[in-house]
Amino acid sequence: MDDERRFGFRRLRGGACGPRLGELRLGARRIPTPAFMPVGTRATVKTLDSRDLERIGAQLILANTYHLYLRPGSHRIARLGGLHRFMDWPGGILTDSGGFQVFSLAAFRKIRPEGIEFRSHLDGSRHFLSPARVLEIQRELDSDIRMVLDVCTPYPAERAQAEAEMELTLRWAAQSRDWWRREASAEAARGALFGIVQGGVHSELRTSCARALVGLDFDGYALGGLSVGEPTEAGQAAIEAACASLPPERPRYLMGVGTPQDILAAVARGIDMFDCVLPTRNARKGTVFTWDGKLVVKNSAFAEDRAPLDASCECLACRHYSRAYLRHLFAVGEMLGGRLATIHSLTFYQQLMERIRAAIAADRFEAFAAETRRRLEGARP
Amino acid sequence: MDDERRFGFRRLRGGACGPRLGELRLGARRIPTPAFMPVGTRATVKTLDSRDLERIGAQLILANTYHLYLRPGSHRIARLGGLHRFMDWPGGILTDSGGFQVFSLAAFRKIRPEGIEFRSHLDGSRHFLSPARVLEIQRELDSDIRMVLDVCTPYPAERAQAEAEMELTLRWAAQSRDWWRREASAEAARGALFGIVQGGVHSELRTSCARALVGLDFDGYALGGLSVGEPTEAGQAAIEAACASLPPERPRYLMGVGTPQDILAAVARGIDMFDCVLPTRNARKGTVFTWDGKLVVKNSAFAEDRAPLDASCECLACRHYSRAYLRHLFAVGEMLGGRLATIHSLTFYQQLMERIRAAIAADRFEAFAAETRRRLEGARP
Repeated sequence: MDDERRFGFRRLRGGACGPRLGELRLGARRIPTPAFMPVGTRATVKTLDSRDLERIGAQLILANTYHLYLRPGSHRIARLGGLHRFMDWPGGILTDSGGFQVFSLAAFRKIRPEGIEFRSHLDGSRHFLSPARVLEIQRELDSDIRMVLDVCTPYPAERAQAEAEMELTLRWAAQSRDWWRREASAEAARGALFGIVQGGVHSELRTSCARALVGLDFDGYALGGLSVGEPTEAGQAAIEAACASLPPERPRYLMGVGTPQDILAAVARGIDMFDCVLPTRNARKGTVFTWDGKLVVKNSAFAEDRAPLDASCECLACRHYSRAYLRHLFAVGEMLGGRLATIHSLTFYQQLMERIRAAIAADRFEAFAAETRRRLEGARP
Repeated sequence: MDDERRFGFRRLRGGACGPRLGELRLGARRIPTPAFMPVGTRATVKTLDSRDLERIGAQLILANTYHLYLRPGSHRIARLGGLHRFMDWPGGILTDSGGFQVFSLAAFRKIRPEGIEFRSHLDGSRHFLSPARVLEIQRELDSDIRMVLDVCTPYPAERAQAEAEMELTLRWAAQSRDWWRREASAEAARGALFGIVQGGVHSELRTSCARALVGLDFDGYALGGLSVGEPTEAGQAAIEAACASLPPERPRYLMGVGTPQDILAAVARGIDMFDCVLPTRNARKGTVFTWDGKLVVKNSAFAEDRAPLDASCECLACRHYSRAYLRHLFAVGEMLGGRLATIHSLTFYQQLMERIRAAIAADRFEAFAAETRRRLEGARP
């Protein structure tokens, strides 16, 4: 049995609710939590290669099953030795189930009790994803942390819809757990399977979904269907309800979230893992995150600004290039602008997580969060 | 007087014609020749930052005056401390006069005895470039090697046109030399001024143009108006005619050329410096140079090829990524593909120049060139 990538989680501080400190284990690799995962949709975090990711300090990235399944194909990635080898990435990889992209991208989709039928947004070809199929695909990708197929309830949605979708999510979760036990006894040592809590903004649904998933005993628990347009308070209540019902000894992952402020709020409620396209997508459009808030570096206001994006940052962009240079690159449409901005914003997110962990370790997370929020939201001159 | 960037050229081997070995000096920097300059059109070699260029081994790059004059503006670059500081590039920078882009890009242009009137291809705004003006702009850019304004004769062109344009080029060269002596005594210590030999494919015009320029005593001599569609032999005859009339102690620069084969042919005739968009432009489109010829890595033939682009190459792309990974990146349109291919092809060009220099030093350039041509043109399986 290959122990090289055996999954584990060690809780170092905190309980079911409130800020937690921990450590994900992938074989010999230790990934301190709370952790942020850059999004490497199509086997690259856009504009970056795996050496860049190492320099930024990322240890765990997310890759999208839907995109990789369609192109270059999970069979192909399997024949090439899996995603780690394909992108030469020694760090961890978490793959989603593909369900979310089916909902947001596919040209056509139909949810059936056995899974989701859809047509590719690329060529209209017909596909079917069942709970077992998405696990087979993720096995082909050879990721370290894998997600079950779920139904992501939109906002707003009637309680009845949220409940029915949660029930289907639970049925698929049970089938996924069975598949994992049955088919993947060797695989289990090479990765982890996470369940996903759904239930919309209905706290009692979140609670019962979490409890039912815990009964199935997953390696970790994700919270899905949040940051889909719901009011902040409703989202936070849903996180609280779910976390209160999840076991302290397992990692919790809030999918697709979010801004630095969102992350501070979720850490305060017991979340350990995050992913979001925000830092990378915004960067490519000319907006970066700094400790003094967002900076729209493509604006003409920065055309002669010799300062780096963030004077306190040690990233490649901040050590060598001015806002004026980046502004020029964006103004003329040079790819290097998006790349340097991406490197900066991901470095900022890594540093944010590092400071969050230090604050939790020093028992001053609340003060740190309040101060950081103030700085991030302070008016920029 | 600022000696830090004083220009010089030391001929180490070879004469007026035939392969030469030399060394460009920019202050303390020594740049061995024959040398290839990556093209950094808009203050970035597309997809690369200046740290990437250092890793590739580039010591001298070209930047386009026309593009930088329009955006972000040479005044602005001057206020930001010049191009070196703007792009944080400690190596050398050669700027062209902008004339060539006016001919190829401007929405409208009219050659007058005093200079070139044109409208910007970006916004239609009206501009006028005189011999003095292009030197003022290059002074604002603060490049190390600067070019005089010239008229680039197209192919085909009647002899009368080629002669008239050569005459105007010479008149402007004389005005440029005067400006340089008059206005730029301090500048002279911070850079070099190159004259440009024109004359189309008419060897006797090339000869007389070269002789007249030598009378004006430039720091180096460029050959313009080649690789514009003329037959290979006609271009090579023009190079031979020009080189035979140029002083051995000054560097010769063949503008905008070319393929590895073009470079081998021009080195054989006495050229020291090259620039070309070919390696970078082709790379972004999915074709790279290797020692076994061009490789269209975006082709589906490479979809499951685990080999690197070139097994003998030590670049970032070849050390870490397979052809299959690059093919995927091109197939899905990820920028990283163009970036990795660019890094590879520029590394190949640097290595080509290194091997050319080694072969000249070992007195076996002819054999090396023949062998390299055979390899480059050999059929790829």
